[in-house]
Amino acid sequence: MNLLLIEPQEMKNNEVWLTDRRARHLIHVLKVNTNDIVRVGVLHDRLGFGKVTAIEEEKLCLEVCLEQKPVIDLHIELILALPRPIMLQRILKQATVLGVRHFHLIRTRRVEKSFFQSPVLRPDKIQTLLKEGMEQAMDTWLPGVTLHLQFKPFVEDVLPSLEGQGLIAHPTARHTLLDAPAPNSSQKRLLLAIGPEGGWSDYEYQCFCEAGFFGLTMGKRILHVDTAVVTALAQVQLLYDLRKR
Amino acid sequence: MNLLLIEPQEMKNNEVWLTDRRARHLIHVLKVNTNDIVRVGVLHDRLGFGKVTAIEEEKLCLEVCLEQKPVIDLHIELILALPRPIMLQRILKQATVLGVRHFHLIRTRRVEKSFFQSPVLRPDKIQTLLKEGMEQAMDTWLPGVTLHLQFKPFVEDVLPSLEGQGLIAHPTARHTLLDAPAPNSSQKRLLLAIGPEGGWSDYEYQCFCEAGFFGLTMGKRILHVDTAVVTALAQVQLLYDLRKR
Repeated sequence: MNLLLIEPQEMKNNEVWLTDRRARHLIHVLKVNTNDIVRVGVLHDRLGFGKVTAIEEEKLCLEVCLEQKPVIDLHIELILALPRPIMLQRILKQATVLGVRHFHLIRTRRVEKSFFQSPVLRPDKIQTLLKEGMEQAMDTWLPGVTLHLQFKPFVEDVLPSLEGQGLIAHPTARHTLLDAPAPNSSQKRLLLAIGPEGGWSDYEYQCFCEAGFFGLTMGKRILHVDTAVVTALAQVQLLYDLRKR
Repeated sequence: MNLLLIEPQEMKNNEVWLTDRRARHLIHVLKVNTNDIVRVGVLHDRLGFGKVTAIEEEKLCLEVCLEQKPVIDLHIELILALPRPIMLQRILKQATVLGVRHFHLIRTRRVEKSFFQSPVLRPDKIQTLLKEGMEQAMDTWLPGVTLHLQFKPFVEDVLPSLEGQGLIAHPTARHTLLDAPAPNSSQKRLLLAIGPEGGWSDYEYQCFCEAGFFGLTMGKRILHVDTAVVTALAQVQLLYDLRKR
């Protein structure tokens, strides 16, 4: 936990009493004492510091000073064919660490129906994973997560309403990310689509292309979905940094 | 399993009988029939195809035709402060998928001593993970793995003998990968050093810098070690592709 996340309504006159796992983490893992300073962030708001002013058994009081606005540079929404639960957990957390702003979990032909029944998709479970990612990366932005149970309504109704240049990974695409029209300093919003373990069907890939998505190959090596997600996010970030220079 | 890996000594006149988990995978998971064709690669050698010529209960015969030489482009050796076992497993596999040629697992101040007792470090366990990575990425190169139990002898005796430009990730480094002197088409050998969860000590970082390593920051977000490894490998590959153009 590199950042202690606080909900806005928990603050009262710059003071917050913690009584849950955060208090226990501070007391038992970080072993803080009175007057110690910890990094603090308020959900969807600023970052700053908290001074420990009181410790009582399993609860703890912080005096909070917020100063630094969160930096939102690239705005990436990840469109992901719902992977198997264990992989989904890892991706939600890792992609949050890497700054994804919204997850669209979609149904495609090669997604197993049973994946949609997974307990990982329970809102409280998802929120825990996302918050762990935010605490790691020191980010106060809680990504959104939307589940789309059918492919066609997603492509026809939702996709046109999303803002940003679309990129879709597909092994037979002729171009690479280096040819992609975005990101750059005038187009910082991206929709990144990553298929299921068995790949997109031709029809699905076609639908994305018709919606203006740029198809790109990620090289000759076949990556697992979680590796593909981190690889694509890392490369998009590097390309953006390079084009910004 | 995108590639069936065969050891050179298993081949007899372009024929190979499989009796282990590979046979079971072909028969029960891929459900191959006689005359079916599968992608085949010989360890540290060429790739090609295998035609199923016989299936007998739990064993299976392939007629192998090898044609394609493996492409070795970037040669990356990963110097990794030994992470906790569960993370090590993931990194060995993912980094093999991404093409790492050699792993140097080293001891640093913030590596827990107990990690060196982990059963994950048993040679057969390591080899299974690496082979899974090769099967996924369709690569016939089995990466080497060396365990270095002490930091100083590694830095003083081993490091000078390794070939390639060194890059070391460190949060307070002033440069980013975009400023790094390699990779490029005349320097395709890289030594990439990634520290433990708590980071390198100042002394350790200094040792690498004195050995000619280029220090780079991976951005403001603090990444888990496994995410950092995949991110760094993905970005090095993109930068190489870009500079090659």
